[in-house]
Amino acid sequence: MTENNNKPVVNLISKPENMLKTVYTACRTCYSADYPINIYNSTDDEEKMLKLIERVISSGHYSTIEHIQVSFAISNVSRACTHQLVRHRHMSFSQKSQRYVKEKGQFDYIIPPTIERNPELKSKYEDFMKEISKMYCEFTDAGIPAEDARFVLPNAAASSMVASLNLRELIHLANLRLCTRAQYEIRTLVGMMCKELVKEEPWLAKYLVPKCERLGYCDEDKSCGRMPVKQ
Amino acid sequence: MTENNNKPVVNLISKPENMLKTVYTACRTCYSADYPINIYNSTDDEEKMLKLIERVISSGHYSTIEHIQVSFAISNVSRACTHQLVRHRHMSFSQKSQRYVKEKGQFDYIIPPTIERNPELKSKYEDFMKEISKMYCEFTDAGIPAEDARFVLPNAAASSMVASLNLRELIHLANLRLCTRAQYEIRTLVGMMCKELVKEEPWLAKYLVPKCERLGYCDEDKSCGRMPVKQ
Amino acid sequence: MTENNNKPVVNLISKPENMLKTVYTACRTCYSADYPINIYNSTDDEEKMLKLIERVISSGHYSTIEHIQVSFAISNVSRACTHQLVRHRHMSFSQKSQRYVKEKGQFDYIIPPTIERNPELKSKYEDFMKEISKMYCEFTDAGIPAEDARFVLPNAAASSMVASLNLRELIHLANLRLCTRAQYEIRTLVGMMCKELVKEEPWLAKYLVPKCERLGYCDEDKSCGRMPVKQ
Amino acid sequence: MTENNNKPVVNLISKPENMLKTVYTACRTCYSADYPINIYNSTDDEEKMLKLIERVISSGHYSTIEHIQVSFAISNVSRACTHQLVRHRHMSFSQKSQRYVKEKGQFDYIIPPTIERNPELKSKYEDFMKEISKMYCEFTDAGIPAEDARFVLPNAAASSMVASLNLRELIHLANLRLCTRAQYEIRTLVGMMCKELVKEEPWLAKYLVPKCERLGYCDEDKSCGRMPVKQ
Repeated sequence: MTENNNKPVVNLISKPENMLKTVYTACRTCYSADYPINIYNSTDDEEKMLKLIERVISSGHYSTIEHIQVSFAISNVSRACTHQLVRHRHMSFSQKSQRYVKEKGQFDYIIPPTIERNPELKSKYEDFMKEISKMYCEFTDAGIPAEDARFVLPNAAASSMVASLNLRELIHLANLRLCTRAQYEIRTLVGMMCKELVKEEPWLAKYLVPKCERLGYCDEDKSCGRMPVKQ
Repeated sequence: MTENNNKPVVNLISKPENMLKTVYTACRTCYSADYPINIYNSTDDEEKMLKLIERVISSGHYSTIEHIQVSFAISNVSRACTHQLVRHRHMSFSQKSQRYVKEKGQFDYIIPPTIERNPELKSKYEDFMKEISKMYCEFTDAGIPAEDARFVLPNAAASSMVASLNLRELIHLANLRLCTRAQYEIRTLVGMMCKELVKEEPWLAKYLVPKCERLGYCDEDKSCGRMPVKQ
Repeated sequence: MTENNNKPVVNLISKPENMLKTVYTACRTCYSADYPINIYNSTDDEEKMLKLIERVISSGHYSTIEHIQVSFAISNVSRACTHQLVRHRHMSFSQKSQRYVKEKGQFDYIIPPTIERNPELKSKYEDFMKEISKMYCEFTDAGIPAEDARFVLPNAAASSMVASLNLRELIHLANLRLCTRAQYEIRTLVGMMCKELVKEEPWLAKYLVPKCERLGYCDEDKSCGRMPVKQ
Repeated sequence: MTENNNKPVVNLISKPENMLKTVYTACRTCYSADYPINIYNSTDDEEKMLKLIERVISSGHYSTIEHIQVSFAISNVSRACTHQLVRHRHMSFSQKSQRYVKEKGQFDYIIPPTIERNPELKSKYEDFMKEISKMYCEFTDAGIPAEDARFVLPNAAASSMVASLNLRELIHLANLRLCTRAQYEIRTLVGMMCKELVKEEPWLAKYLVPKCERLGYCDEDKSCGRMPVKQ
């Protein structure tokens, strides 16, 4: 498809027009006798808005940040990774279909780093991806529809999607998937999603962290040692 | 609070920066070998985008329109109405709290049209709202906290909220609540929400309709007769 | 309706036939090469099942306990309380409708404890509930439909519902609503729901606690002092 | 693992103790002044209960049937199929992990019928599954962790899960996945889930149908001709 570095391609393609003002208005509406439209129209002081929002997030009142939804264009991630990602049921996905999109020539694929850093294994892996591609094409050439021929395609096969989620779910996603116990690929992907958003909204950086930083301890069965385990 | 006509106050305060392009990219990603970011960057033809989106919505593939989330500032709706609205579990709400916001002086309230158009009943209703307000203040003056004094406040009491929802849920909301069997107030509110959005996105008008128009028949137990009932 | 003590009426009316075995099977399926139906059929050792389930819950892998859903019959709670409860969007509700159920004679109502323990205020409150009832009946007698006459009914008016939720959501509900910062009525209600279930499933007691016990600290803006605040 | 006929293995492992009574109570609670626990205790007439429930479902008031949740043990379905199934976000899943469960010897796999009925292609397919298995074992033998070696495993690889869903979602699942446009494997799987439940609750048969039977017409872009397309 395109040259890539065996890494996800992630772009933030949409966020709300009036992100800060919308969340600020939502936070204030709960505690104010004023109409929300008046709150909305009377404020432009970014520092003041951020201060309130941060206090509300710190208190765990996450429903107020559901008003922000962002959309990412994601490519060059394995089907192994997307099968994990679509388990986040508060997200919205539109994914490239292996039923309707027939692979022509060698399909794109991901190489796990444990294999990539071993030249011999890497070479074996790449040769095998060619074998798989050959087999897939034999089946489609024999008239097998793409939706059935794909049964030979591997977890490594690259996929693409548009994924949208609100800020509450993004914080949850970061909490779970930036944990060192998550698989390297989804950890990389979610890290890139967070980075893309933080580029435009730097105040979010402190919330887009693994759960141990939010909790103050590790609640995993097997801890990586980064934080003390819960007593 | 402010002068009003006994009607909801509704303003669209936020929508995605790149609404059409985001949904178009989502629709195309499912059927394309190209990276979504390339699809996104290669298109600006509104007519072409709309044509695809409309075909996808007509086929009932609603997940693609979840990528659009919009936010409304809503005021001057009764607590009766908000108790109905918050039953839509795919929406996000930040509502004025009767626990934390103490009413000072006469609270705002809604008058149902069946009462409003009868001068005698209307006058009785308005006098009684004054009675309730007096009772509420007696309790708060006696040291009862607002969260308990509010037990005397009526369903008529006006509330405010910021409400966000994606386009799939908005279509569902319109399908249910624009039905003549819905209560007049929520029907008015949802009609205004739809109108606000259609002002900016006229192509949405044809989807923001009561369910009978979508289905082609009425599935209510007691039909209003607008459309034939299902056989 | 019936004599009551100004307290919610709560009954557990349904739980899964095979609660422990279902969750145990779910937990083991993630880590086993065996078919889930074989896991299911090969186990009856309650102690062993409980031990695994508790380890999985402690690690925060809550998706496994979504397989348990329980249903409660709830009565004699205020509309103030139900407006809070239905904000839990992972729950399922069927609530008594004030549109379709016309109040005949004095409606049931809840008295907040701050008012109940003051005889003078209590008497004033009860008299006022009679006033409201009279006004409601005047409107319905004048031909106003119940759905509009109810605009004068207070937050205090008693409601009923059937509510279902899975174990993950019940733990979340307990975490939030058993907190001393929650309003007394929903705290009482959720406490009773938990107690009803613990009567039949005592092993659940340790999870149905306020969030400070789960977290090890308080994250509220204004702490009650029960646990140290987060540093 | 076990002998199978290249078909899903599906068992209903849990349903609510008091299924009919719970839904009946929910339906009646909306329209009754009586306490739900009294409704619950006063009824055992199955025919009467079914009659009300069917009327409520026919009117599209689906929230009342969310109170029924059922759990299935599912095995011998491809990862292609489970990637589709977990897109149903109102369901709860516990799936066999390819990260934690290492394949020993030949992994189980599914053969699509278009390949199975062609002896030559079938033989080629089966030989290739052996090749993949060999490659997987070479990687794990070389010290590559299962979570990375699995990148060579195909969409055909068999998976297992416990899946729970409420009756509203099951009807929706049947509407979408019993459609002839759905892929054969998920159509077979969902058909078996429905059949398992209907064995115990025959009254549900009429609701567990493709969407065209519910709507009265086909809304697909490319219709199979079973029902007339929408005008």
